Amino acid sequence: MTQSAASPPQQDRSRITQDRLLDAAVEALAEHGWSATTVGLVAERAGVSRGAAQHHFPTRDVLFTAAIDRLVAARSKEVEAVVHALPERGPQRTRKVLDHLFVLYNGASFRASVAVWSIASTDADLLTRVRPFEARLGRDVHKLAVSLLEVDESIPGVRATIQATLDFLRGLALANLLSDDSRRRRPVLDAWSTMLDHRLSELAAYRGR
Amino acid sequence: MTQSAASPPQQDRSRITQDRLLDAAVEALAEHGWSATTVGLVAERAGVSRGAAQHHFPTRDVLFTAAIDRLVAARSKEVEAVVHALPERGPQRTRKVLDHLFVLYNGASFRASVAVWSIASTDADLLTRVRPFEARLGRDVHKLAVSLLEVDESIPGVRATIQATLDFLRGLALANLLSDDSRRRRPVLDAWSTMLDHRLSELAAYRGR
Repeated sequence: MTQSAASPPQQDRSRITQDRLLDAAVEALAEHGWSATTVGLVAERAGVSRGAAQHHFPTRDVLFTAAIDRLVAARSKEVEAVVHALPERGPQRTRKVLDHLFVLYNGASFRASVAVWSIASTDADLLTRVRPFEARLGRDVHKLAVSLLEVDESIPGVRATIQATLDFLRGLALANLLSDDSRRRRPVLDAWSTMLDHRLSELAAYRGR
Repeated sequence: MTQSAASPPQQDRSRITQDRLLDAAVEALAEHGWSATTVGLVAERAGVSRGAAQHHFPTRDVLFTAAIDRLVAARSKEVEAVVHALPERGPQRTRKVLDHLFVLYNGASFRASVAVWSIASTDADLLTRVRPFEARLGRDVHKLAVSLLEVDESIPGVRATIQATLDFLRGLALANLLSDDSRRRRPVLDAWSTMLDHRLSELAAYRGR
């Protein structure tokens, strides 16, 4: 967090340039998709010369590996943001939690991730790199859902119910990819919330509510 | 369906070549993803010269527009196949229906579609072309789910519950993109089947069962 007195300004500038390139790469991935996102386009977007971009990231592959790390980090930050914006207890708590969790699947970084998953599903190298990040992130989101819903996962059936809920939210977000799905989405989230509430009560899964 | 006596063999050969190119394009999309699927690769896969491919499909754009039509048609055929493989009535009927519907989201054509959606979400031209097909297919799958589950959609709440189910299945399929998710999937489908059965009974939605 503190700036080391020993770190020369050149190194700082380097890091700033790298950060700008990675941010630009993630933005470009989300906006233009994988195939259209060239190193040249990323450099232009970052306001960096192509030569400077190649100095930091010699190949497209190196740039996008780093960009994917960045993307996963961005999604982790979104998870933290959701943790810190806990909805208040009270009626409709489950419904509010679903809205909160849905945010994780509805931003530019989810859209960029779908592009990456789609490529990775047919690219063994990329898959090997992406999988561990996705697995860790998946566990974090699961923990977050358990904590927001305040359920006891040691009760049989609770874990699968939470997983179903996250699968549902992911599928809901996918429907939003091609058109603004918000009007259709509301009653669908209502339906899920009712069913989830009933099921978790039935399993006696709630604690602290 | 019947072969017109007037259609010259040349025209037949043309159509066969076109069909081979389109099939190869869909297969290549599913296997290699969007960016790696060039006209040259498709021609090679179809066993057709690059020149002949360009004769039938002058640009990459024309080829892939036709290939996407083909892809949607393939998914429609999968929907029909599911209709004709109705699971028997009896215990666990809802669970079996979920397995049947999941097939629609778990093949090569779903994988190819995710690639297309991902590109289309950032490509206005492609989006304009893809959206009507997707909307029609979405309605067909919804009708299929209503018919397989034998529910009365005029009852308030039933429609949103069916939509939630299809969103859930789509999200479940997305989880299968990066790794074989079948072991995790089973209890998750069990959980949803229980919740769905309970909810549809509660809404008095079932008919004929």
